[in-house]
Amino acid sequence: MSGLKADVAEPVASRVTDLPDTIGVGMLGYAFMGKAHAHAYRALSYMTWPPPLRPLLVSVAGRSEDAVAEAALRYGFERWTTDWHDLVADPAVELFDNSGPNSFHAEPTIAAAEAGKHVVCEKPLGRTADESFEMYRRVAATGVKHMCAFNYRFVPAVRLAREMIEAGELGEIYHFRASYLQDWILDPAFAKLWRLDRSVAGSGALGDLGAHIIDLGRFLVGEVESISGVLRTFIDDRPGGRVDVDDAFEAIAEFDGGAVGTFEASRFATGRKNSMRWEINGSKGSLAFDLERLNELQVSPGPDATTAEAGLRTILVSEGDHPFWQHWWPPGHVIGWEHTFVHELHHFLDAIVSDGEVGPYGATFEDGYRTAEICDAIVRSHETRAREALTYRAI
Amino acid sequence: MSGLKADVAEPVASRVTDLPDTIGVGMLGYAFMGKAHAHAYRALSYMTWPPPLRPLLVSVAGRSEDAVAEAALRYGFERWTTDWHDLVADPAVELFDNSGPNSFHAEPTIAAAEAGKHVVCEKPLGRTADESFEMYRRVAATGVKHMCAFNYRFVPAVRLAREMIEAGELGEIYHFRASYLQDWILDPAFAKLWRLDRSVAGSGALGDLGAHIIDLGRFLVGEVESISGVLRTFIDDRPGGRVDVDDAFEAIAEFDGGAVGTFEASRFATGRKNSMRWEINGSKGSLAFDLERLNELQVSPGPDATTAEAGLRTILVSEGDHPFWQHWWPPGHVIGWEHTFVHELHHFLDAIVSDGEVGPYGATFEDGYRTAEICDAIVRSHETRAREALTYRAI
Amino acid sequence: MSGLKADVAEPVASRVTDLPDTIGVGMLGYAFMGKAHAHAYRALSYMTWPPPLRPLLVSVAGRSEDAVAEAALRYGFERWTTDWHDLVADPAVELFDNSGPNSFHAEPTIAAAEAGKHVVCEKPLGRTADESFEMYRRVAATGVKHMCAFNYRFVPAVRLAREMIEAGELGEIYHFRASYLQDWILDPAFAKLWRLDRSVAGSGALGDLGAHIIDLGRFLVGEVESISGVLRTFIDDRPGGRVDVDDAFEAIAEFDGGAVGTFEASRFATGRKNSMRWEINGSKGSLAFDLERLNELQVSPGPDATTAEAGLRTILVSEGDHPFWQHWWPPGHVIGWEHTFVHELHHFLDAIVSDGEVGPYGATFEDGYRTAEICDAIVRSHETRAREALTYRAI
Amino acid sequence: MSGLKADVAEPVASRVTDLPDTIGVGMLGYAFMGKAHAHAYRALSYMTWPPPLRPLLVSVAGRSEDAVAEAALRYGFERWTTDWHDLVADPAVELFDNSGPNSFHAEPTIAAAEAGKHVVCEKPLGRTADESFEMYRRVAATGVKHMCAFNYRFVPAVRLAREMIEAGELGEIYHFRASYLQDWILDPAFAKLWRLDRSVAGSGALGDLGAHIIDLGRFLVGEVESISGVLRTFIDDRPGGRVDVDDAFEAIAEFDGGAVGTFEASRFATGRKNSMRWEINGSKGSLAFDLERLNELQVSPGPDATTAEAGLRTILVSEGDHPFWQHWWPPGHVIGWEHTFVHELHHFLDAIVSDGEVGPYGATFEDGYRTAEICDAIVRSHETRAREALTYRAI
Repeated sequence: MSGLKADVAEPVASRVTDLPDTIGVGMLGYAFMGKAHAHAYRALSYMTWPPPLRPLLVSVAGRSEDAVAEAALRYGFERWTTDWHDLVADPAVELFDNSGPNSFHAEPTIAAAEAGKHVVCEKPLGRTADESFEMYRRVAATGVKHMCAFNYRFVPAVRLAREMIEAGELGEIYHFRASYLQDWILDPAFAKLWRLDRSVAGSGALGDLGAHIIDLGRFLVGEVESISGVLRTFIDDRPGGRVDVDDAFEAIAEFDGGAVGTFEASRFATGRKNSMRWEINGSKGSLAFDLERLNELQVSPGPDATTAEAGLRTILVSEGDHPFWQHWWPPGHVIGWEHTFVHELHHFLDAIVSDGEVGPYGATFEDGYRTAEICDAIVRSHETRAREALTYRAI
Repeated sequence: MSGLKADVAEPVASRVTDLPDTIGVGMLGYAFMGKAHAHAYRALSYMTWPPPLRPLLVSVAGRSEDAVAEAALRYGFERWTTDWHDLVADPAVELFDNSGPNSFHAEPTIAAAEAGKHVVCEKPLGRTADESFEMYRRVAATGVKHMCAFNYRFVPAVRLAREMIEAGELGEIYHFRASYLQDWILDPAFAKLWRLDRSVAGSGALGDLGAHIIDLGRFLVGEVESISGVLRTFIDDRPGGRVDVDDAFEAIAEFDGGAVGTFEASRFATGRKNSMRWEINGSKGSLAFDLERLNELQVSPGPDATTAEAGLRTILVSEGDHPFWQHWWPPGHVIGWEHTFVHELHHFLDAIVSDGEVGPYGATFEDGYRTAEICDAIVRSHETRAREALTYRAI
Repeated sequence: MSGLKADVAEPVASRVTDLPDTIGVGMLGYAFMGKAHAHAYRALSYMTWPPPLRPLLVSVAGRSEDAVAEAALRYGFERWTTDWHDLVADPAVELFDNSGPNSFHAEPTIAAAEAGKHVVCEKPLGRTADESFEMYRRVAATGVKHMCAFNYRFVPAVRLAREMIEAGELGEIYHFRASYLQDWILDPAFAKLWRLDRSVAGSGALGDLGAHIIDLGRFLVGEVESISGVLRTFIDDRPGGRVDVDDAFEAIAEFDGGAVGTFEASRFATGRKNSMRWEINGSKGSLAFDLERLNELQVSPGPDATTAEAGLRTILVSEGDHPFWQHWWPPGHVIGWEHTFVHELHHFLDAIVSDGEVGPYGATFEDGYRTAEICDAIVRSHETRAREALTYRAI
Repeated sequence: MSGLKADVAEPVASRVTDLPDTIGVGMLGYAFMGKAHAHAYRALSYMTWPPPLRPLLVSVAGRSEDAVAEAALRYGFERWTTDWHDLVADPAVELFDNSGPNSFHAEPTIAAAEAGKHVVCEKPLGRTADESFEMYRRVAATGVKHMCAFNYRFVPAVRLAREMIEAGELGEIYHFRASYLQDWILDPAFAKLWRLDRSVAGSGALGDLGAHIIDLGRFLVGEVESISGVLRTFIDDRPGGRVDVDDAFEAIAEFDGGAVGTFEASRFATGRKNSMRWEINGSKGSLAFDLERLNELQVSPGPDATTAEAGLRTILVSEGDHPFWQHWWPPGHVIGWEHTFVHELHHFLDAIVSDGEVGPYGATFEDGYRTAEICDAIVRSHETRAREALTYRAI
């Protein structure tokens, strides 16, 4: 196209100049999560209008020089580095986004917070409850905003569910049942990677998938008081080494409000690609959700429903008055998985600019820690064969 | 119509006379289950053609004289009685069908078997593992045929699932997850009835609904080796008295082949009318089922599936080569819940006339006992807070 | 079982004797439809309690002596014949049920009515509008009750739809779209049978499947005022001879109330076994139905719905206050296709015993004729390439 | 955030410089479609990596000065104008994107092409077949690339369908049935806007929604040879004036390969928000799609399927080897409606940079014209009451 190129840089007189303030973003990691976060920072700048702050993609850090340089080029970061300490030291970085592997969550995130940067960290917060508590304790002490990136809180249907529950539309909650099913390591020839290595990942399906549904159980129903669990590693010998994390877990829980529930996650659920399903039953109604149809929320009326009102409703959560839909399209023009990150980071920027709370709609590091406490209790229960009572540490 | 009435009793010369032998049926109970069984005996006589035996509805027993007399008239029983001992003493009764409340399962069924009658008993077999074992031990000793009426084994889709698993189409089984959800006692003003009384029912959702899915877990996946459970009674004070059975339970199980699973049942799952759902994940494929759409079986292909084969299939189980469909209609002319009893009792008559086995496709009293053993272990686990190992008694 | 046989014929003193009156049934045909009707007469005797009349299966007629004798034995007809005139002449036959091929609809049904017997005739009424009108005219003149067996009016979800529309819950109707899709003659090696022969069947998918959805359009929306259609015979040369009926048709219709709609039927819709689907859109709400899930009715609220009410509801039509469900089971214990015949023939017996109207809930011969008029107009439109205005003859 | 602001504009040494060439984009319109297109240009720059060309958002034109200035600011256009001629005259504009109202399609698009700019025009191409043909004829004469933005060709499931059909997996096609249903003008108080004004829009549901499904019928099945149609305007008197376009239409079509089909669109389908559904039946298989679940494609096997293969499959079109999924996420992390524009404009940029064809996967102006010819024939058929044969003009 070079023959047609023209000078498009010259500003025209009519250009409007009262844009929102900017915020400099430094990101650790550029793979799956990095791509999702980078997209969200870029898209929220015009999809949510006006955005609370305009993200400037300042710098990205990663271990591979070639890959991180290309990531910077691709997503539009001003610079890149192979040493995450550079992000912490960079005065242009005001928000530190940790999209790296779990073993890189604690030290860089704490360092960034202690350097005065707001911090977003991917889930699970730490590899263990202890590590997660340390992150929570030290980051909270700095006074920066902190968010554990449980993005499914920001699915419109999930937020709508929370709002309905808060409004009392479900009455007393009796049941929560959740499963998060994938099948990507079914093949025994699939090689061990970092997600199958305890020293890097902390756990397997438990921390990767289970953490999401445990967080949603806490978000939607309440605090977990006891849990019984069983873990399984179906294939523990793979090319690349011994697998020392769980392939799947099953657990039953008691919630503080009297509800009971099941949690289950697996990477061996043949045919289930990204199937996070949950259902809540309350005295006045029920709700059900499936991530593979994330624009839909199923609602059952309660026992007083007339015939005219009865039956399971499938709400296509895409109306202008549905959560987050002021940013999007006319009804029925459905959105995708990646949009959850747009909503999530928009929420975080809003908390920063307004000095508001990240919780209860976003997950704080305390939420990240508490979920880790529950994950650890499932591991303990597997070993002790006992129902474990939960206790949560305070800072 | 009296003016048009004619003598239709006179036999015509062409009437065929080589009908199958008859079998005299005596039934205890005439309510929900009695209606379903009576229909099945009548319908199988011509829907399955020729039937293994032609059921003659000899006598029905129940406590209310008016009700049992009307039931006899309605369903075509030759006689009725308010004393079940009459059925046991009646030489015309060759098959004793126990469709009565749980507290009437043990004594009459044992007596009938000891009087030489084949016995069908509704589930749960007994109110406890001990009572169930006693029924199994004493009835097996008589040599009559015995079946515990777990009718969901006779849903065409469930039988097809069993056949696919037997043929190795699922490979190694990793997961079984099952829930049986209803909502009929949500209303606190709903009065206590026999199903909410431990002395009559033995347990609540556990024995009524849970027994079905536990039996299907055993039927489809294998024997249960350990179980952890939690029970809940959400409303324990009702008109008519204190509820002393569970409204719901949650459990996680380990199977003998290495699979893990969840079992859950509730009478407080708002909006779920008769939702018995289960899913099985194996190394080569997955299966899923929902009783509210009982003509459908969902099948996922395994990890070797090409794009052309991939995706969750919904088989409308209604083809001529599907289980039990030789008895019914052209493809897609779907059948109902009641037809499971037609298949089940047809199976039992066939075992009687051919002196064949009731198992493994039908549930024997041993199956009924083993499921009771698991139900009891869930109750113990709730109290001990421990994962309970299962041991099964042999006769 | 002979060793255990006993005399079960002896009546006991307590037997109740005040049964409803009987009605003698003579049936022409014993194949698919005959089986469905015979089952219905037997099942309604105890499933609908007390039944309006007790059907006595007097005699069955068919062309094959062996087959009709076996049918009589199987379904319990007192006698059989290879000459349908015997049914007409039989004074014990008070209700003539024509479940035979289309070419045997007119003459026997008219003869039976003129002999004073109430008549049920399978759909399509006649092979053409002319033949159908002749049946309507002559049968109506006799004063007997007449019903054209459009059994899908008696699906609980369809009746519920009608009741909702009658109650104004849909407001003004804008759209009706219906398709009835099967795939049983896809294979070119499938031989020509009577349903593919115009002299016997009258038409192909049009009269067999199309008649059902046209009848439902009339039942639910209103009278058809104009129609444009296209027919197709995809495979016209088959083993057994040249196919001279349509394999499929497509049509668009204008209704008298201003609504517009589509009708379509095919025997070449690969993978669709018995998929009769329709949807109605009105100013206050919408309804949708699929015969393969016949226990479900989908309902959309209208434009005034709040978020709390919005979304497509799936009513599991199985509650005690749903149409016909007083005869069946607890909620969610779903029924099958064959039950539509139980409801239909119950309705007809009720009309007979109470001297009530068959319409508007049952289809009369006038309804059968009017649907035939529309089918003929579709054929004409295919040939004339014009939108055909409908005119209906009066008697 | 001002206190933390830093100079982030300074380039770092490591910045990579070998980016793809740029292409200057000028856009007419900034509302619904403008937002979708602007997003797509921005997102494809990093989501498809490397992009064929890097879009530079040069200028945007619209009638309202305030609104267009804000749109420029929001989406990052370098400049804006209230006179579309400025875009045509701007040498920096190499690609002219017409996202304006239908009455602004012809003149600006032709002018832009004649000025040597590649042109994308939203559908419907023109308001009539004549206007569309003129656009096709004059633009094609210039030699620039042209695309009519039928974005649903770029839904992954739709492209997969096309690929399966091209590969012969469906065999001979018998049926196409499509409906596009919305309900946003149900309320009689909803005011007339440009989409309800014939002079601006050309037609109503026909050109807005019907054009999409007609284009997909042509894309998936073949050319339309004849059509019969009916139009309806249910509410013709609204605040703001008389509605002179259709609210809905129904049509039946014959395709050149022998298939028959139905097309239907409505803005009065209560409860249907954006429900574009189609189904194709072929001799070897069937396909079905619903835009409200755009990540799913339903596939039915053909008549030779074994039980193990039978049943309707729901493919979650989200695997790495599915169309367009090399750009996105791991399996099951579903995408949204807006992503179709990313794929579409990526396709167009690729055609530009490689001097390749826009068709057959993208819709050219010839496709846009032919669809308009079919729309006009539906209007004629409504008036003439006749089946209209289609003839297409050549340039």
